[in-house]
Amino acid sequence: MTTPSQRLAELGITLPPAPKPVASYVPVVVVEKAGLVFVAGQIPMKDGRLTASGTVPGSVSIEAAQQAARQCVLNGLAQLQAALGSIDKVKRIVKVGVFVACEQGFTQQPQVANGASDLLVELFGEAGKHARAAVGVPALPLGAAVEVDFVVEV
Amino acid sequence: MTTPSQRLAELGITLPPAPKPVASYVPVVVVEKAGLVFVAGQIPMKDGRLTASGTVPGSVSIEAAQQAARQCVLNGLAQLQAALGSIDKVKRIVKVGVFVACEQGFTQQPQVANGASDLLVELFGEAGKHARAAVGVPALPLGAAVEVDFVVEV
Amino acid sequence: MTTPSQRLAELGITLPPAPKPVASYVPVVVVEKAGLVFVAGQIPMKDGRLTASGTVPGSVSIEAAQQAARQCVLNGLAQLQAALGSIDKVKRIVKVGVFVACEQGFTQQPQVANGASDLLVELFGEAGKHARAAVGVPALPLGAAVEVDFVVEV
Repeated sequence: MTTPSQRLAELGITLPPAPKPVASYVPVVVVEKAGLVFVAGQIPMKDGRLTASGTVPGSVSIEAAQQAARQCVLNGLAQLQAALGSIDKVKRIVKVGVFVACEQGFTQQPQVANGASDLLVELFGEAGKHARAAVGVPALPLGAAVEVDFVVEV
Repeated sequence: MTTPSQRLAELGITLPPAPKPVASYVPVVVVEKAGLVFVAGQIPMKDGRLTASGTVPGSVSIEAAQQAARQCVLNGLAQLQAALGSIDKVKRIVKVGVFVACEQGFTQQPQVANGASDLLVELFGEAGKHARAAVGVPALPLGAAVEVDFVVEV
Repeated sequence: MTTPSQRLAELGITLPPAPKPVASYVPVVVVEKAGLVFVAGQIPMKDGRLTASGTVPGSVSIEAAQQAARQCVLNGLAQLQAALGSIDKVKRIVKVGVFVACEQGFTQQPQVANGASDLLVELFGEAGKHARAAVGVPALPLGAAVEVDFVVEV
């Protein structure tokens, strides 16, 4: 059986350094008794800058927003790896919240959010299948086009 | 004592078929250790179409949005029934998130969200009383007027 | 060791009376098995009126919104005190959601949310460090500028 970290390697993906929170909070909180881990909202930072900023679909295409959602997941997994030692400690991806900065009338939040969900399933298989809520918002921290938060089981 | 499923029958409500997620995720995730179940964001689909689309109060009245919030709950309960066998397995409704597609300046998200909360209390009694967050958003998947997600205890 | 309630006293802060929910739900739900407590979305009510209403930064300055976020935390702690007997029963602040009513293009949700986070860390120390998601929204209940919800461990 391939582990999620082996699958990352097979896909040629190296997790980024775990990004620092942009303000006074921590990226990961583990609740042992519940077996749950809460990951703070991740934005699509890569090499110190956002991969997509502004609103969908005017300033950011759906494809770019999908890639941004995928980057949010990579950043979240980097946080989990830093906190737990390995992403292979994750038993199940439980809940994913996807916030898409968009204009009124935009209705394809699910397609954008699939950029996050598809990568989780690609890496974790059945254990990567999660409950999800995707919603539109007018604006996000630093102007990010997408923000993703997670609850996982360990 | 009346069970929630008996109460449904008394009210003449038949749960709809559990709607399929509109993208790559699952409707329900059970976390045994925590005794918690996470239900994905539900939109007011009924017989394959949205009961309310657009923003409140311009295109959708508060009353129509309340009915839509109620439909989201019915869809969520249908998901729980499909996943757990019966909604009577639910010990407590824990947290409900209500996202209302609205115009800037709209302040009656609580009234809209009551369409969801009141049905839960009607069905589950004391065990239906939940913590809640209701917020406005500019746009939701497929153009839905309301989206509701849930955490329940089993 | 100073407890959070002693720290409140040192800071000269008296928790307000626990505000009543503005609609049909409850302020706090305890899930014993998981050791988690869910606190409903709090708005900056003080002495029966909002301390900040409208959107940031047009009608509400960042500083006023930070104070409003702080007030939301005080209200949430008042709810926890009412439900648990004392805020000293809180083992850890787990997850904080901060919704900032703002105009499109506003990107300083993290600075606003720090009004909530900084007070939690001031009161609870290491145990106050939480995962967080801060997002912009077009409108909130009653016209509040900020809404904050919480998950805590007991």
